[in-house]
Amino acid sequence: MPAEAMKLIDDDRLFPANPVTRAIARRLYAEIRGLPLISPHGHTQAGWFARNEPFPDPAKLFVQPDHYIYRMLYSQGISLDDLEIGVDELKDPRRVWRIFAEHYYLFRGTPTRIWLDYAFHELFGLEERLSGATADLYFDVISERLRTPEFLPRALYERFRLEVLATTDSPLDSLADHQAIRQSDWKVRGAAPRILPTFRPDSVVDPDFAGFHENVAMLGQMTHENTSTWPDYLKALAVTRQRFKAQGCTATDHGHPTAHTAHLSADEAARLFEKIIAKRADAAQKELFRAQMLTEMARMSVEDGLVMQLHPGAFRNHNRQVYERYGRDVGADIPMATDYVRSLQPLLDLYGNEKNFTLILFTLDETTYSRELAPLAGHYPCLRLGPPWWFFDSPEGMLRFREQVTETAGFYNTVGFNDDTRAFLSIPARHDVARRMDCVWLARLVAEHRLDDDEAVEVARDLAYNLVKKAYRL
Amino acid sequence: MPAEAMKLIDDDRLFPANPVTRAIARRLYAEIRGLPLISPHGHTQAGWFARNEPFPDPAKLFVQPDHYIYRMLYSQGISLDDLEIGVDELKDPRRVWRIFAEHYYLFRGTPTRIWLDYAFHELFGLEERLSGATADLYFDVISERLRTPEFLPRALYERFRLEVLATTDSPLDSLADHQAIRQSDWKVRGAAPRILPTFRPDSVVDPDFAGFHENVAMLGQMTHENTSTWPDYLKALAVTRQRFKAQGCTATDHGHPTAHTAHLSADEAARLFEKIIAKRADAAQKELFRAQMLTEMARMSVEDGLVMQLHPGAFRNHNRQVYERYGRDVGADIPMATDYVRSLQPLLDLYGNEKNFTLILFTLDETTYSRELAPLAGHYPCLRLGPPWWFFDSPEGMLRFREQVTETAGFYNTVGFNDDTRAFLSIPARHDVARRMDCVWLARLVAEHRLDDDEAVEVARDLAYNLVKKAYRL
Amino acid sequence: MPAEAMKLIDDDRLFPANPVTRAIARRLYAEIRGLPLISPHGHTQAGWFARNEPFPDPAKLFVQPDHYIYRMLYSQGISLDDLEIGVDELKDPRRVWRIFAEHYYLFRGTPTRIWLDYAFHELFGLEERLSGATADLYFDVISERLRTPEFLPRALYERFRLEVLATTDSPLDSLADHQAIRQSDWKVRGAAPRILPTFRPDSVVDPDFAGFHENVAMLGQMTHENTSTWPDYLKALAVTRQRFKAQGCTATDHGHPTAHTAHLSADEAARLFEKIIAKRADAAQKELFRAQMLTEMARMSVEDGLVMQLHPGAFRNHNRQVYERYGRDVGADIPMATDYVRSLQPLLDLYGNEKNFTLILFTLDETTYSRELAPLAGHYPCLRLGPPWWFFDSPEGMLRFREQVTETAGFYNTVGFNDDTRAFLSIPARHDVARRMDCVWLARLVAEHRLDDDEAVEVARDLAYNLVKKAYRL
Repeated sequence: MPAEAMKLIDDDRLFPANPVTRAIARRLYAEIRGLPLISPHGHTQAGWFARNEPFPDPAKLFVQPDHYIYRMLYSQGISLDDLEIGVDELKDPRRVWRIFAEHYYLFRGTPTRIWLDYAFHELFGLEERLSGATADLYFDVISERLRTPEFLPRALYERFRLEVLATTDSPLDSLADHQAIRQSDWKVRGAAPRILPTFRPDSVVDPDFAGFHENVAMLGQMTHENTSTWPDYLKALAVTRQRFKAQGCTATDHGHPTAHTAHLSADEAARLFEKIIAKRADAAQKELFRAQMLTEMARMSVEDGLVMQLHPGAFRNHNRQVYERYGRDVGADIPMATDYVRSLQPLLDLYGNEKNFTLILFTLDETTYSRELAPLAGHYPCLRLGPPWWFFDSPEGMLRFREQVTETAGFYNTVGFNDDTRAFLSIPARHDVARRMDCVWLARLVAEHRLDDDEAVEVARDLAYNLVKKAYRL
Repeated sequence: MPAEAMKLIDDDRLFPANPVTRAIARRLYAEIRGLPLISPHGHTQAGWFARNEPFPDPAKLFVQPDHYIYRMLYSQGISLDDLEIGVDELKDPRRVWRIFAEHYYLFRGTPTRIWLDYAFHELFGLEERLSGATADLYFDVISERLRTPEFLPRALYERFRLEVLATTDSPLDSLADHQAIRQSDWKVRGAAPRILPTFRPDSVVDPDFAGFHENVAMLGQMTHENTSTWPDYLKALAVTRQRFKAQGCTATDHGHPTAHTAHLSADEAARLFEKIIAKRADAAQKELFRAQMLTEMARMSVEDGLVMQLHPGAFRNHNRQVYERYGRDVGADIPMATDYVRSLQPLLDLYGNEKNFTLILFTLDETTYSRELAPLAGHYPCLRLGPPWWFFDSPEGMLRFREQVTETAGFYNTVGFNDDTRAFLSIPARHDVARRMDCVWLARLVAEHRLDDDEAVEVARDLAYNLVKKAYRL
Repeated sequence: MPAEAMKLIDDDRLFPANPVTRAIARRLYAEIRGLPLISPHGHTQAGWFARNEPFPDPAKLFVQPDHYIYRMLYSQGISLDDLEIGVDELKDPRRVWRIFAEHYYLFRGTPTRIWLDYAFHELFGLEERLSGATADLYFDVISERLRTPEFLPRALYERFRLEVLATTDSPLDSLADHQAIRQSDWKVRGAAPRILPTFRPDSVVDPDFAGFHENVAMLGQMTHENTSTWPDYLKALAVTRQRFKAQGCTATDHGHPTAHTAHLSADEAARLFEKIIAKRADAAQKELFRAQMLTEMARMSVEDGLVMQLHPGAFRNHNRQVYERYGRDVGADIPMATDYVRSLQPLLDLYGNEKNFTLILFTLDETTYSRELAPLAGHYPCLRLGPPWWFFDSPEGMLRFREQVTETAGFYNTVGFNDDTRAFLSIPARHDVARRMDCVWLARLVAEHRLDDDEAVEVARDLAYNLVKKAYRL
């Protein structure tokens, strides 16, 4: 049948072909599809909502910020220059869009395709599949809509029924945009919108982060602490966490190459910090410092109640030539095998049984689901498992997660979904996929008489809404 | 529909929703559901059957010995003290039971839930789901039944249709309970019951085992050998294996942190043993000693015909605070990535092609199924693969095992199921799950025209009954 | 129903039981089942086609060359001597065949069973299952057919509708057989048959390869270069690659213990080579040399356009006793955990973004699919992923590959199927399994409304035919 006769998205999408299971999945999904969205971990920009200006053209909106899209195009020989990656003002957005459209077939079978079709259909009313032939139609329709008030950031926030949207922010960020939102008269269903910062201190705790030493100095200036001494450096971090809390922040986020944690004495830590600051540390000492800082962050979380998130295991900027030309975060971060069991032991030894501590673990190494993460989270009271993330927020990735985690950690040591996206327009699509896949998993349990219907409904609601609020203390 | 209208367990539980495959699975299962149970590896206590005294209250029976249960409760913030873990006489078993019942929802989607519902329904006739509301009903019904003769250990053994039940025993155990059983007049279907010891020497071959030095000294006393010299230490072990064999033992069991084996010369081994006994060995030397001892045990197996079982890969007592307060085996053992290919080579180099040698391998690292274990077992005549074990004896875990192992090692390099449990009442449930999941796997092969019906029936019988008898030389 | 009533193979074999998905899979498969076979990577012998002599008896044809078969038999205690492995002229082929037939049940659930049944049925018209009872029938029928002209190598090549068949060849091979084929008057559908060599230099670049030093000397003789100096050694390799190209070769193939690559300066490399040639290199230096040679091979590929294939991760000849008695490639190679991310970085750092470079990666460690290989191939323009290979060319192995790779790398960073076989008669069966399983995967995407019908047909054709031609530059 011709592609033109297809709907771009189907009401039963992602549900299994088996009619018994599909019917159960459909019924469960009907119970949760209307629930508000909680987005506790992501990379949208508070400035969009502070300024509420129209999003620019389709290429700038969809292609430029989304490394899921252009990494695939790049892998097939399309140059990043032709896609105008890293360019502030696109010279020829329609040309970029056409290149993307002509290669849309590359995304067959990927979650990117699912998210995009959802946005194209649900937000822009497009019905024909994107291709070279429909590139201009798409460009024109999307461009036109983006100029309407219904497509301003705040309007979309409301249309998406977002209840909480967390951004990810450097300790060096003034949080002025967050403040501007809180001080504006914008109300969502009668209440202040909850666009909350997340404390992400990598740039001031990872000696290998570009500009680390300048960043630490800047942190000192901002907090009026002498961050070249260990106690004041720690104090500056604690003070900044308080500043984030004052803007509604409930969580920290840590992206380290490994999950190593350490438990140094105060003296050892101070000596190590001295070496780091004096730029006399070698690779092993830098790694030890990162490890110690995770433990320090955990200690501060025990004290101030910020939920801690850890996602180790990415080899950042693997492609040197691309990094040197286009910078960080352009799709060349590659996962590595990751250990949690030995690595987290020093931290857990200190804080693993603390009542007031939550540590949410993410992974880029799926082999740890059943071998390490579920057993750890199924024992330690502080541990919870973040959803399948980054490369793994696919339909199959979500099923692998539930299949390998539930048997040991159950549902209640997990924290619901997070979209982790820079692509604001993909947020509803991503939550939709997660909710559907959780229903698929639950439907299987029900169909195989392993869970009663009423329980499945309760779990579906918990996974879509309740667990995330509880875990992130929202 | 209200939970009260549900049956606690359904006749088609665990079978796939697809009607074609379900029908085949059902038919295969009908062929094997009546076969006797062989339990060649587990942690029940011979003393129960020697003394045949009633099991105590429901909390003592179900909650206290089952770290699957209380590790989940602990992970959600319930204190082990409230559950009276490690307490000899429970002060308030009903209160413990109520805490468990109120949190029964935590087990949704876990195998524990399946095993418990089976026991509640099949043994105690309970029909309503366990919850806070039904906690007292459960407590009362179970308590009452436990006082009847039908619930004495020997009666249950017969009711479960156990044909063999192996325990796991220290070389320092007198095996008096096993002897008492054999000398009693208890007959099962006209024959002596086969409750057999298994030789588990970790406590006298692992220098990191609590009390190792005292244990080795005690071994010397029991065998009248001077266990502070290498040759006599080995002799003491060989003699003790003979003592076990005399009580019906057919297998040894080895729980090591890694699968390392070594092939030292007699002189090197003697010098290493000297260091170990003199407490002058460092961590690497202790690991080397464990490695050498696996090879020594293999050698003795070649000589005395005891089947060798190895299950490496657990980081024992990961939670120091919990270990210091509650001791070993309280649910804080966590799997680690495990290598078999390099680690087993020294042992296989010596004994891998021996006719009279069987080494059954278990794993806590599922990535080794297709990468290492199936290729090894699909080549070496001495190797067989133990069933998915510990964290992986779940319905999905069993399917992952068959899916990843069968293609390379076939069915006949596996050894059927073992329940590995301390929870006696869960034994029938666990075998039931294993038998059903094997039928599910076979049904898929039949439905996809990869196996004929008559073959599937034969394989189902082999997996449920014949392979285990053959592998464990029963 | 009696086995005799079964067809040996069913038209719907391997398709899922669900009727909706099965119908889609069947429809997709109908579109591609008639496409010619491209076999770009395998281990058949050019001499068969050069000489076009009849294949010998069934045992010599099926059992002796196929380590998939005799490794399974060996694992169950059958001696390699009884199977006459390594014997040039079988003394009692009928006896070998009977042993195999009596143990055919061991292959239940394995891909070997699927391939064999296909060959037995499609090529020899056999309808009853192989077993002890039918052993002689099989032996007689197959023996008789092998004596007919229809079963000569060239006739089978045409019957299999092979369009390209690549062999795997040492740089020391004269390629006389390939030349003989090209110079013969054999035409396939009016054109010269494409039986192409592949450049596999392990024997002259891996210092641990048996006879390495003699091989390097021989390479010097064949190319008239002084291969005891670094520049001339490299030149000899480049010249030999040209010789292979002249015989139609389009690809190289590299089987290394790890994926390590290195980027040494010319001086460092020359000094290392000196050590290697002087037999003064230790294990680490040998590994570094292999690593450097992969980078050198990549450089030559950039220059001469030969597609590079890398398959690391096998522990070769794991069973010393068997190796010493029967030699290489007898089924005792065992996979190991393999890293790609750090290992390939030096090579990718140099050539990862080259337009004229294709590097096809294979793995024996499935954990790398989603964690390393798909993210790498989904970014670097030079990288493509080879199909699931060796132990993983099973129906489930193929689904695991598609499931874990597609979400990140899509379909178009993969290269279609290769059969990698020494067993010529299994080639159609292996391609048939691969085509069916790709249709199963695509059918699931269609049934779940994730891919339109017309797209699925296009992808199915690409996976079966177009991608392999493009990737291997055929």
